[in-house]
Amino acid sequence: MSAFEDLLTRVRETDSRDNCAALDRDDPLGELRGQFVHPPGVIYLDGNSLGPLPVETATRVQHVVTGDWGQGLIRSWNDAGWMDLPAQVGDQIARLVGARPGELIVCDSTSVNLFKVLRAALALWLAENRARRQDSAAPVVISQHGNFPTDLYIAQAAADDLGFELELYDAAQLAARLADQDAAPVAALVLTQVDYRTGAIHDIGHLSACAHAARAFAIWDLAHSAGAIPIDLHRADADFAVGCGYKFLNGGPGAPAFVWAHPRWVNKAHQPLVGWLGHAAPFEFASTYRPAQGIRRFLGGTPPILSLAALECGVQTVLAAEPLGGMAALHAKAQGLTELFIHLVARHCRRHALELLSPTEPARRGCQVSMRSPLDGYAIIQALIERGVIGDFRAPDVLRFGFSPLPLRYTDVWDAVMELAEVLDSGQWQDPRHARRRAVT
Amino acid sequence: MSAFEDLLTRVRETDSRDNCAALDRDDPLGELRGQFVHPPGVIYLDGNSLGPLPVETATRVQHVVTGDWGQGLIRSWNDAGWMDLPAQVGDQIARLVGARPGELIVCDSTSVNLFKVLRAALALWLAENRARRQDSAAPVVISQHGNFPTDLYIAQAAADDLGFELELYDAAQLAARLADQDAAPVAALVLTQVDYRTGAIHDIGHLSACAHAARAFAIWDLAHSAGAIPIDLHRADADFAVGCGYKFLNGGPGAPAFVWAHPRWVNKAHQPLVGWLGHAAPFEFASTYRPAQGIRRFLGGTPPILSLAALECGVQTVLAAEPLGGMAALHAKAQGLTELFIHLVARHCRRHALELLSPTEPARRGCQVSMRSPLDGYAIIQALIERGVIGDFRAPDVLRFGFSPLPLRYTDVWDAVMELAEVLDSGQWQDPRHARRRAVT
Repeated sequence: MSAFEDLLTRVRETDSRDNCAALDRDDPLGELRGQFVHPPGVIYLDGNSLGPLPVETATRVQHVVTGDWGQGLIRSWNDAGWMDLPAQVGDQIARLVGARPGELIVCDSTSVNLFKVLRAALALWLAENRARRQDSAAPVVISQHGNFPTDLYIAQAAADDLGFELELYDAAQLAARLADQDAAPVAALVLTQVDYRTGAIHDIGHLSACAHAARAFAIWDLAHSAGAIPIDLHRADADFAVGCGYKFLNGGPGAPAFVWAHPRWVNKAHQPLVGWLGHAAPFEFASTYRPAQGIRRFLGGTPPILSLAALECGVQTVLAAEPLGGMAALHAKAQGLTELFIHLVARHCRRHALELLSPTEPARRGCQVSMRSPLDGYAIIQALIERGVIGDFRAPDVLRFGFSPLPLRYTDVWDAVMELAEVLDSGQWQDPRHARRRAVT
Repeated sequence: MSAFEDLLTRVRETDSRDNCAALDRDDPLGELRGQFVHPPGVIYLDGNSLGPLPVETATRVQHVVTGDWGQGLIRSWNDAGWMDLPAQVGDQIARLVGARPGELIVCDSTSVNLFKVLRAALALWLAENRARRQDSAAPVVISQHGNFPTDLYIAQAAADDLGFELELYDAAQLAARLADQDAAPVAALVLTQVDYRTGAIHDIGHLSACAHAARAFAIWDLAHSAGAIPIDLHRADADFAVGCGYKFLNGGPGAPAFVWAHPRWVNKAHQPLVGWLGHAAPFEFASTYRPAQGIRRFLGGTPPILSLAALECGVQTVLAAEPLGGMAALHAKAQGLTELFIHLVARHCRRHALELLSPTEPARRGCQVSMRSPLDGYAIIQALIERGVIGDFRAPDVLRFGFSPLPLRYTDVWDAVMELAEVLDSGQWQDPRHARRRAVT
């Protein structure tokens, strides 16, 4: 029996807090919990929305503010290496997603980066399929029902810009649609690898291959997968990817995002957000745009240095696991944590008919568990938050619990389920205080 | 004689450091200098590129990092008001540019925001001129030769997207081109109000009126004017505006930018970077985009909280001048500082044939003075920086000196000119150490 199978067996046999404490003692990643600030009285199950604060970040940001900016002023663009930060942090993220140095860069938001890669991909498709296009229906971009809203809005906008249609399918239909040669040609498949509501993981290699068989680009949003699960963009043979800095990369609220392009495309890729830092020679201040070679052409405006410094600290908390097994070890622990949560909820909250929305097979889940309740899910989450267990609610009825493997312990999972059981058993969630008051949760 | 005329007269008669010290003693804004960190041995004449660090910023950012993020975690989106920051800081910037509360919002970079407003404006123009368009040449976007490169790149990209041509003119030709009814119809005039190289100020009201007479949108980049000179977007009757947070707003390296739309357009304006936070109901997570009412529809991804907090501190250093005369007082002092610099350079660097590129009339200059030298301008700036006087160089031959009126004193101007004279008289700039080594300066 492998160590991982052994872990799952132990998790499924857990029936006491002591069992969880033993799992924590045996956790090879346990020592990395100390990289984070842990507010007293809080069990934080929302790292999938905003990663916790790394201990290093405050010092680093303070140094950037008071030293680099305050004392160095404009000189710090060179002297403190500010100009290199987008690529430097990009190279570190690259190690987590199977990209090579120089292929990935940090900038803008996930939304903006998705617009860039989609516009670049669709323009490439038009250039390569001009002849074919005359003879067929309007080409399409396909994505999934229930993909993160921004991704769908941006896909629609990019498609509209270049005369494509956007079509949505259920996850199970995507491969068949790509294989359907009688339907309109597909130019791009745009998916979020880990579903933000259910945590289900797409098979990135299989779906990229299906896209390529249809002569379509495979474009991946790694928002809920970077820093959460092992990704190998090259082995998956993806074409473009974007991702988020403030979830499992622990970069802080609104941290900048990242963008990657496969080397076979990057120097043919043209995107419309052509800022001065993406120019081949930014400091020539030429009036005509000439894109930089490589991924730098996806840069636009001046990089956000405070946020980049914070993001670098966050990424380094994940890189710290490299000697301990890296992303595979992180995802193994996340599977242990999520399996434990599901197991304990089934046992201790049995009466309350919580329905598991996440895949039952641990390896098919990202670092989260989502459940649906016939009761008022919003109020349940509010009651839990009041007791220090922070999960979140996603309309219309999803209770979402994130399990960042670095900061969390198995005993945290035990304690969280006991609080959940208490909230449900006692009816505390029915307290009018917890009723939905405003749209922003 | 008005106080301002008196100031200019005193400046032009200055012939000693004591005169400058007297000007400092009489400076009504002098007390606001203490709002900034001043590195010892530095005279900072580059606030037009990166504003200096406000004293408050370090504490504020630290609080956001360790308190709001570290302790509050995801709850701070509501409890610490993070969700409101883009509008809250926007309302403060609005006071500096003649916009009303709720009309201006902080997000993304200047480049990205310019793309949004241009795409929105051109789509509006197409909608309003569909009939007319059939009969005439391809409509055009016009801008200025030498406008900031990003603005030209973005204008070209937005124009390409919707089938417009981009035409560039010298500043003096713009009004005539707009009035030329025999040429192709102009859909939009896109200008940077204060020229980044020369500091020359466009007459925003006059040119907006010329644009409107041509049925064109007037779109303004306020990068070098927000926090530097008085602006009244409503009185100027501008249509859209964008601007930068890290220059005269002192928001820190790569601070987020802002975007404004005139109320007559905002709810008709559709831009393609449609992120979830620009949705009418972001937390419904609807799969179809429905833009928020008002300027929030220009939001996209999750806002960068650390950077927004720093920007708010920067904006507040400028707002602190409101009881002392506000932007008019700031620009009056800047005219005093720039006039003093020009006067002293003429007197003390006479032998070195520095050519003034900025307007000679003080009121037509933003907070900067640019000069051209027949010598090696790059090396001169490097030699000056080594002596603690930080200006910058812009290819091909521009020496650029910024005069942020809040942190700078008249004695700083005196000291800076003495250093410049010394660098030139002694030939220090010829030291091979100062020769251009790399493209990034």
